[in-house]
Amino acid sequence: MSETTKTAEAFELTEELRQSPFMRACRREPVPYTPVWLMRQAGRYMKEYRDVRARHTFLEMCKQPEVAAEVTVYAAHRLGVDAAIIFADILLITEPLGLDLEFAKGEGPVIHNPVRAAEDVKRLREVEDVSSLSYVFDAIRLTRRELRPDLPLIGFCGAPFTLASYICEGGGSKNYVNTKRLMYTDAGAWHALMSLIARALSRYLNAQIEAGAQAVQLFDSWVGALSPDDYREFVLPHTREVIRNVMPGVPVIHFGTGTAGLLELLKEAGGDVIGLDWRVRLDEAWQRLGDVAVMGNFDSIALFTTPDIIRQRAEAILDQAANRPGHIFNLGHGILPETPVENVVALVEAVHELSQR
Amino acid sequence: MSETTKTAEAFELTEELRQSPFMRACRREPVPYTPVWLMRQAGRYMKEYRDVRARHTFLEMCKQPEVAAEVTVYAAHRLGVDAAIIFADILLITEPLGLDLEFAKGEGPVIHNPVRAAEDVKRLREVEDVSSLSYVFDAIRLTRRELRPDLPLIGFCGAPFTLASYICEGGGSKNYVNTKRLMYTDAGAWHALMSLIARALSRYLNAQIEAGAQAVQLFDSWVGALSPDDYREFVLPHTREVIRNVMPGVPVIHFGTGTAGLLELLKEAGGDVIGLDWRVRLDEAWQRLGDVAVMGNFDSIALFTTPDIIRQRAEAILDQAANRPGHIFNLGHGILPETPVENVVALVEAVHELSQR
Repeated sequence: MSETTKTAEAFELTEELRQSPFMRACRREPVPYTPVWLMRQAGRYMKEYRDVRARHTFLEMCKQPEVAAEVTVYAAHRLGVDAAIIFADILLITEPLGLDLEFAKGEGPVIHNPVRAAEDVKRLREVEDVSSLSYVFDAIRLTRRELRPDLPLIGFCGAPFTLASYICEGGGSKNYVNTKRLMYTDAGAWHALMSLIARALSRYLNAQIEAGAQAVQLFDSWVGALSPDDYREFVLPHTREVIRNVMPGVPVIHFGTGTAGLLELLKEAGGDVIGLDWRVRLDEAWQRLGDVAVMGNFDSIALFTTPDIIRQRAEAILDQAANRPGHIFNLGHGILPETPVENVVALVEAVHELSQR
Repeated sequence: MSETTKTAEAFELTEELRQSPFMRACRREPVPYTPVWLMRQAGRYMKEYRDVRARHTFLEMCKQPEVAAEVTVYAAHRLGVDAAIIFADILLITEPLGLDLEFAKGEGPVIHNPVRAAEDVKRLREVEDVSSLSYVFDAIRLTRRELRPDLPLIGFCGAPFTLASYICEGGGSKNYVNTKRLMYTDAGAWHALMSLIARALSRYLNAQIEAGAQAVQLFDSWVGALSPDDYREFVLPHTREVIRNVMPGVPVIHFGTGTAGLLELLKEAGGDVIGLDWRVRLDEAWQRLGDVAVMGNFDSIALFTTPDIIRQRAEAILDQAANRPGHIFNLGHGILPETPVENVVALVEAVHELSQR
C-alpha cells in the first residue's frame, strides 16, 4: 500500500476498500457479485441534484467542495452502487492551462480562446502545480469523509485527445474540423499541445489520488472520431504517458465511445480496465482485448424503457461476462438528464441480484 | 442486360457504361485505375451549387428535375469523378409515407408528425406506387441524357433504420431516445414501421433504376448508434429485404458510418459493395468482409488541409487496397459545406494518378 501513501497527507487505502468488489474487479480477482456504478450517476436526472443545481451554476457546483461532495455522496448512497465518482468536469484543467472556460446557458461548454495554430499552443501555460484545482482535491477529501467507508471513490480526467478537441474547437463538435486540421497540418504543434495536456493530467490525477481517490478514469469520450492510424500516431503516445505516470497500484480505467475499431490500441495505450460502449458485444470485445478488466456496456437509452426490459438487457451483458473475473458493470456512456431515476435504481438492483455468485 | 430493361421506358445499360471503371469495380473486375466519386459531391462547398441554391429552397431543388439534373451533372463533370449520384434527399420518401417533412432554415430536416407509438405507425400510408416521387425519376432521366455517356449514375435511398430514426425523432438526433424506446418497448410496432419503410424503398429504388440509374446506394448513415445485437434483431431483416428486392444485375452499395462493430452484419444484410467510413483501416475491414467490393474511406476532414497532405493520405488508402479488384475510392462520409473545392479536385486527381495500373 505504500505507493498510495507517498506524502504525509495522502489518504491511506483501508483493507475494507481494497477488498471491495469494485477494487477486486479492477484487479481481476473473484467477487461475490458484479460491482456496478454508472457514468454521470450524480446528474440532472436526479431531483436532489436539480435542487442543488437550481441554487448554483455548474462551475460553482464544481468549485464548492461541500456541494461537489454532497452530490457525489448522495448519488452513490441513493443508487446503492459499488463506487462513487467525484463530481467535477473534464474541462476544469483547461483553466490552469490558460484557457478561458465558460459553461454557457443551454449551449454547453465554451472556450473563448481556442487553439487553432502553433502560436496558440505557445501561449498556453505549463501546469507546474495543480494547486489552482485544490477545490477538486478538497471535494475528494470531503467526499472520502462522508462516503460509506467500503465504497471506493473514483477520480478522473478527460484524456488528452478529448480535451484537445474542446480546446481546438472552442466547445463541443460534430466533425472536429479544427482539431484534425491542426493534427494533420502541423504535427509539431499538435504533439506539443497533447504533451502539455498530458503533463498537466499526470499531476492532476496523482493529486486526486493523494487526496483520497482509490482509482482514476480517463474519459476519451470523443476518440471514436479518429481512424486507427491517426489514433496510433497522434494520440496513443500521449494517453500512454498519462497512464504510465499514475501512481503504481492505483487502478486506471480507460474509457472511450465509438471505439469498436480502436480497442486494441486503447489497450496498448494502457489501463487496468478498458471501458466499453454499447456498440460492441462485451464478450467479443473482451476476447479481442485479452488480459485486462472491462467496464460496461449497457445502452443508456434502454433506461428509458421499463424495469423488466432493463433487467433482460442487463442479464444479456452479465451472460456475456460469464462470471469471468474483471467485469465492472456500467453504462456505455453517461446517464441522460431525462432518465427516470427509478429505472436507474432498477438497473443497479438487477445487476446485483442477477450476478450473485 | 434484360433484367434492367423490364419495362418499355426503362433505360438500357450500354456497353460503355457496363465497362466503366465504376461498374467494373462493383463487379470486382480489374480496372485501369481506381474509380472515385465523393458522397455529397454536388453540395454547398461548390460555388455553382450555392448560386443555384440561392434561387431555390432545398426541397425545390429536389423537386425540380432540371435543377436536380443540373447540379448532378455539373458536379460530376467538374470534378472528373467516375460516377454521378442523383441530387435528392433520403427523406423525400417520408412524404408519400404520410409524414409532414420540412427543411427548416438552419436547423435541418423536421418531421412535424413523428412516430412515437403503435398508433402512429398505423396512420402511415403504404406506398403502393411511387408516382408522387416522379420528380426524382424525371431528374434521373434528364441527368442520364446530359451526363457523359460513359459515366454511371447512382440512385439512392436512406436505409430503413436511418429513415426510421428521422421518423421517430422528428429530425436529426444525438441519442435516438425516441427511436430506441419504440424499438425496445414495442417490437411489433417497430417491425411494422421498418417493414412499411422497406416496402416503399424497394419500389422507390427499382423506379430509379428503370428511370436510368446504373447502381443504387443505401445510406444507413446513423446505424452506428446501434449495438450488434440490436442491429441483428431490429434492422438487418429489413435492410436485407430492400436489397434483395433490387432488380437483379444492378449493383447495390450498402453504406453506413460508425460501423466498425457491425461490418459483418452489414455484409449479411447484403450489398455488392460495402461502404466504409474512416474509422476502420480499409485493409482490415476488407479482410473481415471477404468476398465483396468495398468503397471508401478517406476522412472528409482531411480535405481541409493541403493537396500534398491529401495526396499522402489518398496513397495510404490505395496502398491498403493494393490493387485488389473491387475498390471504389470515396470519402468516409459526405463533403462538408466549407470544404475548399480545389482540394476536392486535388483528391480526385491524386486517386487517378496514383492508381494507374
